[in-house]
Amino acid sequence: MNVAIIGATGYTGLELVKMLVNHPKFNITYIANSTGEQRVDELHPCLQNVISMDVQKAQAKDVAENADLAFLALPHQTSMGFAKELLELGVKVVDLSADYRLELETYEKNYCAHEDKEHLPQAVYGLPEYYKEQIKTTNLVANPGCYPTATLLGLLPFVPYLDENIPVFVDAKSGVSGAGKKLSEVTAFCNVNENIFAYNPFKHRHMPEIIEKVKKLGNKELNINFVPHLINATRGMLVSTYVTLKEDIDPVEVLKNAYKDAPFVRIKDKPVDIKSTAGTNFCDIFVAKNGNALFINTAIDNLLKGASSAAVANANIMCGFDEALGVPNIAYVP
Amino acid sequence: MNVAIIGATGYTGLELVKMLVNHPKFNITYIANSTGEQRVDELHPCLQNVISMDVQKAQAKDVAENADLAFLALPHQTSMGFAKELLELGVKVVDLSADYRLELETYEKNYCAHEDKEHLPQAVYGLPEYYKEQIKTTNLVANPGCYPTATLLGLLPFVPYLDENIPVFVDAKSGVSGAGKKLSEVTAFCNVNENIFAYNPFKHRHMPEIIEKVKKLGNKELNINFVPHLINATRGMLVSTYVTLKEDIDPVEVLKNAYKDAPFVRIKDKPVDIKSTAGTNFCDIFVAKNGNALFINTAIDNLLKGASSAAVANANIMCGFDEALGVPNIAYVP
Amino acid sequence: MNVAIIGATGYTGLELVKMLVNHPKFNITYIANSTGEQRVDELHPCLQNVISMDVQKAQAKDVAENADLAFLALPHQTSMGFAKELLELGVKVVDLSADYRLELETYEKNYCAHEDKEHLPQAVYGLPEYYKEQIKTTNLVANPGCYPTATLLGLLPFVPYLDENIPVFVDAKSGVSGAGKKLSEVTAFCNVNENIFAYNPFKHRHMPEIIEKVKKLGNKELNINFVPHLINATRGMLVSTYVTLKEDIDPVEVLKNAYKDAPFVRIKDKPVDIKSTAGTNFCDIFVAKNGNALFINTAIDNLLKGASSAAVANANIMCGFDEALGVPNIAYVP
Amino acid sequence: MNVAIIGATGYTGLELVKMLVNHPKFNITYIANSTGEQRVDELHPCLQNVISMDVQKAQAKDVAENADLAFLALPHQTSMGFAKELLELGVKVVDLSADYRLELETYEKNYCAHEDKEHLPQAVYGLPEYYKEQIKTTNLVANPGCYPTATLLGLLPFVPYLDENIPVFVDAKSGVSGAGKKLSEVTAFCNVNENIFAYNPFKHRHMPEIIEKVKKLGNKELNINFVPHLINATRGMLVSTYVTLKEDIDPVEVLKNAYKDAPFVRIKDKPVDIKSTAGTNFCDIFVAKNGNALFINTAIDNLLKGASSAAVANANIMCGFDEALGVPNIAYVP
Repeated sequence: MNVAIIGATGYTGLELVKMLVNHPKFNITYIANSTGEQRVDELHPCLQNVISMDVQKAQAKDVAENADLAFLALPHQTSMGFAKELLELGVKVVDLSADYRLELETYEKNYCAHEDKEHLPQAVYGLPEYYKEQIKTTNLVANPGCYPTATLLGLLPFVPYLDENIPVFVDAKSGVSGAGKKLSEVTAFCNVNENIFAYNPFKHRHMPEIIEKVKKLGNKELNINFVPHLINATRGMLVSTYVTLKEDIDPVEVLKNAYKDAPFVRIKDKPVDIKSTAGTNFCDIFVAKNGNALFINTAIDNLLKGASSAAVANANIMCGFDEALGVPNIAYVP
Repeated sequence: MNVAIIGATGYTGLELVKMLVNHPKFNITYIANSTGEQRVDELHPCLQNVISMDVQKAQAKDVAENADLAFLALPHQTSMGFAKELLELGVKVVDLSADYRLELETYEKNYCAHEDKEHLPQAVYGLPEYYKEQIKTTNLVANPGCYPTATLLGLLPFVPYLDENIPVFVDAKSGVSGAGKKLSEVTAFCNVNENIFAYNPFKHRHMPEIIEKVKKLGNKELNINFVPHLINATRGMLVSTYVTLKEDIDPVEVLKNAYKDAPFVRIKDKPVDIKSTAGTNFCDIFVAKNGNALFINTAIDNLLKGASSAAVANANIMCGFDEALGVPNIAYVP
Repeated sequence: MNVAIIGATGYTGLELVKMLVNHPKFNITYIANSTGEQRVDELHPCLQNVISMDVQKAQAKDVAENADLAFLALPHQTSMGFAKELLELGVKVVDLSADYRLELETYEKNYCAHEDKEHLPQAVYGLPEYYKEQIKTTNLVANPGCYPTATLLGLLPFVPYLDENIPVFVDAKSGVSGAGKKLSEVTAFCNVNENIFAYNPFKHRHMPEIIEKVKKLGNKELNINFVPHLINATRGMLVSTYVTLKEDIDPVEVLKNAYKDAPFVRIKDKPVDIKSTAGTNFCDIFVAKNGNALFINTAIDNLLKGASSAAVANANIMCGFDEALGVPNIAYVP
Repeated sequence: MNVAIIGATGYTGLELVKMLVNHPKFNITYIANSTGEQRVDELHPCLQNVISMDVQKAQAKDVAENADLAFLALPHQTSMGFAKELLELGVKVVDLSADYRLELETYEKNYCAHEDKEHLPQAVYGLPEYYKEQIKTTNLVANPGCYPTATLLGLLPFVPYLDENIPVFVDAKSGVSGAGKKLSEVTAFCNVNENIFAYNPFKHRHMPEIIEKVKKLGNKELNINFVPHLINATRGMLVSTYVTLKEDIDPVEVLKNAYKDAPFVRIKDKPVDIKSTAGTNFCDIFVAKNGNALFINTAIDNLLKGASSAAVANANIMCGFDEALGVPNIAYVP
């Protein structure tokens, strides 16, 4: 099946190229960014000797002529304009931006006016552990945010055992690649190296995404308080979620039941780390209990399970392939 | 005043030497470790051209002959045997181990049988922000643990506004030097680099220390749940404490009142980072509120405010000097 | 084809498992280490959900019953004992140790007495860029050292233009994984982090390996002076070689001629970096000239092109497969 | 003595403030940058509770009214305009830029037209190990570049034993702070982390500075070839210099003779590392010989001995104080 990658300049676009160039069923026929001026191995020298293809200036019509499915690794707002056109031209879309993740009201409150209200209701939230059946039949997958993926996979199984009135605290730690490629004082080497700090406490846009999905999937409006931290690492995400249980449960059993059919969730018997998941599509989960206090500990690769490999897995499902096809399960990091 | 450093091999011993060699009032007359076989600048080559002095095999009688005050940077259990002898010989002691930090029962439950029950009741917990008057007149200071220092300075001012039944969550992140110099797979470069992970969740020995001090200083038995993480940094500690308020308060005002006379506590208007405190005796604090959820964010240098510079500040107070004398307030880290 | 991995505990053994588990032609039938007590995904938790197989206590006879080719990721001296048995049992061997890399005299001078003088002369040095034809027909490949691989691929094309009397200087920088998994003060996080230092200048065992291979392949006994450095990175190797040209040449043309048929050598027009090769089997090369001074700059992944992926490529060639089969050409590092 | 710091925004300006705020003889009376809009502890939050002073918009007349000596931490070209005015107003100047380091011809070839030819001949190159007497009596010190400092201190003692026709190779490695604070793709965290690479091989402006000073101090025009590398560290510089000896010498004796009176040069018996000098004014040197090949290995802190602490030491000497006064000799890095 022929696929297009729109937005090849950033980290998630590059990861898509890396996976799709070796994918047994998908065939990259079109790569684009906003300028369309280089070959892809000039844009990303690490691709030299791997793939050499002109990068196009993105045009929906050209995509439709060349591909059956498109991955959009674009900024929010830009993405929905492009997705709308593609959907109308009959191209399946996996959108890695925030544009189709939220209900209209939540979206417009946290981002901007929505410009594709027509397709928004059809979008399926691309968390295969919870929406696999719906993904199979949709033409539009909204790939989840990285923090929501790591948080929801840990938190959702425990929602039935939580009290709506007691705060849930999510202390999340992300590698710097999560901030994208844009130059900034925050992500300059001398600021991040040998450092760790919180940013936007209680104000990150992924907080309403988490709250909305918990409400939808867990039928409960939890008081979720989200604090992201930036860590001294390129990739990887660790989420430490702290909740108060209203009844006594065996948390490992809860997890095992929730994920018995999930090929990319691993229940661990020790605290998880980012290195074991970096470079893969796995989400590792560990839990520990202290009386009514529960510590839910998840790790993912923010660029893969938190973005690009999840997108490929979603595309696999949309096209009737195995979820795991061409999706990395091991990484060359010791 | 002549001082001795016992336990010069480890990180905290080295930091003591560094500060005391340039201290305007303390004069190092005796340095010891368990072997007594090298000069101190052989043991720590970074001290070459700075101080050249034989390291002794530690003997209490020799300490008493050479010094009026001794810093003990020894493992717990070893430390109390040595402190006991020194106190009986009339030497003032600043003990950096856990041996005199806790009440007898808490200590024996979490460490081992106590071997100096005689002096334990006289020990003052060396947190000058709360015990300055008592430190002035004691001969025995128990220097607090690094995690308790960073946690308590953030948490204590808010204890009156917390409900005993709702869990407090402490998500703490420490640089690797906090684990000491002993070789271990955990602290090997390839394990820590590009990584972050929790360890001993709810089971670290600093958890009962925090609970006991909150009870003593805040008159409230809180349900405190402590999860430490190891981060990819040599030194520095960030603590993110999450509490549920039972009434509406202005948290910045609470902090300002609590620390108006504390020279080494800085209230910040942005999330704190470890780099700004590394190499100094400062504790930086930031707070953010979201409804009844409060995020208390503190940073210290685990080896300085969390150990050795706190010990020097305590010694200053014990000897009638200014708390800040010879204690680093700036670091040569960009 | 059925293959065995002997020595699965260390870094290179793990990398072999990772590649071979997804290899289209090789089938792992036997994994062993010196204890044989765990499953491979217990030994390396990152393999959970990827491969679950008992690790055996290594026995040559069992290998021969289960596999046609064995990868030996063992310490030198141990390796030759094992290889000898396997070769006698008709098993093809790719040896990642130093045991078959050198001529007898060089080996015994730098390592120990050789215990398999019978097979030593048959061993082919596993640098496919120079020995591809010989590798095709041998039963015993001696996989090159990591430093020699990175140095030789840069240096060899220029040997004809160098004077034997003027020293060649090799300033090599290796990630910490090159030192293996053994605990050591040198590779403890707090020693390596934010640091860089030379070790064993002019005394590393890879120096005689480089000299011998230059003599053999370049017919010239050069005065090569090798200084390795340890850098603050887990994997990757950068080699900066400095030579004096005795005649004027176009160094880029020299490289292009030398490697026109080498699928895993990339000639770059900017200084190379370790990140672009980490996780792959590529060797990147850059050159710059200043009068008669030439800077040859190469980068490889020390664990892959410097060890395990080179071993898989060699096994591919030995078995008549394409050199690139199942060998990583892209890495999930941004 | 009252001093001014002009250019307080960058790394070297900040380091100057840190040292001078605790200096026993110098009193900061004036701090300036190009905007003059904040307090110094707003500009650099790590200075909170340490020094609170308005940052001025730099004016030469104001400097002269407030200070007897000025440190200029300005870009080249800007610096000479300012220095000229200050010198005419009778203010002593320590210039940290390149503007007064080179002879007119070398400067104009490598930088730009010189705008203060009047004072250029009076400038003394601020390497106290070689120019201490001249520094004592000058009003204008040109603080050396970081790479030249680390290279020259290692290389100069060996110049008499080198042949002008055989290339000298300098493989230098610098922490990222050496690139200054300006945002750049090169110094973004994700580019530097887990990486190392050369830049500007044979083309860095510090190469002519090294060549000129070797010629001046060593009376020999050497064929020096300089290749800088950027490393994954915030501060610190390691230089590995490779030379060919034309006669047999004891290199350690040569060093000991050269630096017997240099308080900030330490001869080491093991390869040097950046961590032991980071945060101090020390230059550590190690040498190893292999036949006629010599490895000269030096380490400094690029921001201190390579810039700001050297500037303070120079100011000390200019003002008749001890070179070491207020200059850091120990660092709070384990």
